[in-house]
Amino acid sequence: MKQINVGVLGFGTVGAGVVRLLVENRDILRSKVGADLHLKYVADIDTETDRGIALGDGVLISDAHKMLDDPETDIIVEMIGGEGIAKEFILKAIRNGKHVVTANKALIAGHGNEIVEAARQHGVDFAYEASVGGCMPIIKSVRESLVGNRIHAMTGILNGTCNYILTKITEEGSTFEDALREAQAEGFAEADPTLDVEGGDTAHKLAILNALAYGMRINLKDIYVEGITRITPLDIAFAAEFGYKVKLLAISKNRGDAVEARIHPTMIPLNNPLSNVGGSLNAVTISADAVGDMMLYGHGAGMMPTGSAVVGDIADIARNIMTGATGRIPVLSYQPEAIREVPVLPVDEIETHYYFRFAAADRPGVLSKISGILGDLGISIASVHQKGRKTEGAVPIVMLTHIAREADVRKALTEIRNLNIVCKEPVLIRIEQ
Amino acid sequence: MKQINVGVLGFGTVGAGVVRLLVENRDILRSKVGADLHLKYVADIDTETDRGIALGDGVLISDAHKMLDDPETDIIVEMIGGEGIAKEFILKAIRNGKHVVTANKALIAGHGNEIVEAARQHGVDFAYEASVGGCMPIIKSVRESLVGNRIHAMTGILNGTCNYILTKITEEGSTFEDALREAQAEGFAEADPTLDVEGGDTAHKLAILNALAYGMRINLKDIYVEGITRITPLDIAFAAEFGYKVKLLAISKNRGDAVEARIHPTMIPLNNPLSNVGGSLNAVTISADAVGDMMLYGHGAGMMPTGSAVVGDIADIARNIMTGATGRIPVLSYQPEAIREVPVLPVDEIETHYYFRFAAADRPGVLSKISGILGDLGISIASVHQKGRKTEGAVPIVMLTHIAREADVRKALTEIRNLNIVCKEPVLIRIEQ
Repeated sequence: MKQINVGVLGFGTVGAGVVRLLVENRDILRSKVGADLHLKYVADIDTETDRGIALGDGVLISDAHKMLDDPETDIIVEMIGGEGIAKEFILKAIRNGKHVVTANKALIAGHGNEIVEAARQHGVDFAYEASVGGCMPIIKSVRESLVGNRIHAMTGILNGTCNYILTKITEEGSTFEDALREAQAEGFAEADPTLDVEGGDTAHKLAILNALAYGMRINLKDIYVEGITRITPLDIAFAAEFGYKVKLLAISKNRGDAVEARIHPTMIPLNNPLSNVGGSLNAVTISADAVGDMMLYGHGAGMMPTGSAVVGDIADIARNIMTGATGRIPVLSYQPEAIREVPVLPVDEIETHYYFRFAAADRPGVLSKISGILGDLGISIASVHQKGRKTEGAVPIVMLTHIAREADVRKALTEIRNLNIVCKEPVLIRIEQ
Repeated sequence: MKQINVGVLGFGTVGAGVVRLLVENRDILRSKVGADLHLKYVADIDTETDRGIALGDGVLISDAHKMLDDPETDIIVEMIGGEGIAKEFILKAIRNGKHVVTANKALIAGHGNEIVEAARQHGVDFAYEASVGGCMPIIKSVRESLVGNRIHAMTGILNGTCNYILTKITEEGSTFEDALREAQAEGFAEADPTLDVEGGDTAHKLAILNALAYGMRINLKDIYVEGITRITPLDIAFAAEFGYKVKLLAISKNRGDAVEARIHPTMIPLNNPLSNVGGSLNAVTISADAVGDMMLYGHGAGMMPTGSAVVGDIADIARNIMTGATGRIPVLSYQPEAIREVPVLPVDEIETHYYFRFAAADRPGVLSKISGILGDLGISIASVHQKGRKTEGAVPIVMLTHIAREADVRKALTEIRNLNIVCKEPVLIRIEQ
């Protein structure tokens, strides 16, 4: 049986998941792939800690270059993360003619165009299913299953930390700060949660999906990103009253010559299947001309789910090696010559429904002034709820709008803010129906 | 640009969906696949009806053998259905060295082992993503994405007709007969709905999934099949009172040396994501060692969703042709030599929770006799509801059990039936927690 040699860079949690699957499920992989996916090297600066996985002599090494320079290693699995040494190692592996598998969304979102071009020049495969949606086969679905479709839109819950925190706030009425602390205690959030809770990680993933779905160069910098740090139990409670849940969504829409791409907390109705995706789970809905709406749902992160996606990529590459079919599918879904520069629309140009909460001064005429400004800017109010409960000297006025243009909404909020009739920064949450 | 010639057998609804995608999305397919998927022939005995798709001169033919014998046609798409002429044409295409794509679950479930062996002998690809779950990439997910997993179980809503009917009964309190008539009127059910409503179609699909997931030969005949024709609004209303919905589920469980495989109406709790899959939609949950639980959700049938899956298969095969990688993935997921005869357990050996409804005679001691028989057979009752409302001279007694063995349950129901204290056949619906 043919042997394909695999080297894993980084023996942290996710690296250990890959190693465990390659070791423990080696027999089942052989019976499916028809080759032996042999774990030749695992490189980590820490070669002492016991990860509970028995490795043969000489497999665990501290010098990554030993595997990168080894002519017998066919596939390099980068599990280090970040945009520093990981990028350097990946580019060296590619230059040395090795196929590369990674889960590193930050790296692909930031430097993917360069890496993909390097892989093309050196005739190697570069695979990254685990970078978006963990074990869910979102990249394979977009690149392969939906190949005959024109994709209209994608909507995803792509960050388990944020979904865990929002679920806690929704179900237990916790504040953001308390929910974050709990998420950290239970291992669902990092010590520095910035990349997750500010939406950056979700943006990395959407940048990758956009390229695959719309045939555009990877473009991270133009995606509008708003995280969940300002979400309060009060707004989530109001959302529930209106029949909505609040989720951090990645939303992209194909608008022909441009793409709408944004990450923000979003109210979605309870009959939207994404509203039932709780805890740290992930899900993505894809709308396309032939399939209509389709959804994938599963664990978006974690040692074994991520390991599963990485091993799926290893097997795909192994099958290409065995049949001489490297480069069988273009890395970014479209043939390189078909990839275009598609602009991402400024957020000002999006049109959607809005939820506003104003902390209004408790005196006559306030509601009329607010609604006057909205009306002057063509923002039509679908419903208003002014509740009696005065908190911190102000009355909460909640409004839901019909479809409005973001630029008008921003202008209106600035004017309302300047009136000195609202006591705090107005709250704005976008609604997707 | 390389041209891959495609011939479509059968220009009915689904065949027309494939043709439409190949024609209308030809440019996007080119920009992704890097080849021209050229529709060379469409064969149908009806060459007169206008399907609203413009085909070139000489493309629509009535003689299928013209494309089967044409040395330039690379891929044959069988969209005729059934186990008669479709099988004959597929085997001829394979013998002539052509790759084959089909959506024909009945044929694969009944004759798949033979067809797969023929494809192997003749070195051609045989693809059938559209046979299970319509546009959902369930076959690709099991064969490729989950390749590193040991699959523990699969649970699916795999028949849109049944799901549509059960949704109608649930939401509108219709009888089965009325809901079926509505489904027929709206095009969700065939004039002869037997294969759908008796569970046969769902069994075809589960037989295919079982082979892929567990490395077994396709085995349709041993799957336990019970349809939805006896489901009443009363039982669905009771289910709702207990917090359950009733769905026709395909359930399979890997029990090591054997497989549990059954199709039957099933009560599932509202927090099970499958319970929210309404109308004609399909969904499948897969449980596996690395991914945990994962779900796919989408349109399981219909012209364009099915067309999308077929075109995905055509593109996969085209990519294999272009890179010389035919046979890159074994048709049934496992290498032929790794496929085993895995027995399907008799339904008597399953263990699950049960819902019973007895139409009990309205006299003293009935409940004690029923519960006595259940107790003697080791069937432990979780809850009993005896409602006052007497209908047709009988009182409904509803019971939910703890985990019990099917053989014991059947024995108990026979004994209860023989007591002459129940006026009608007891109702049994299995519950999955």
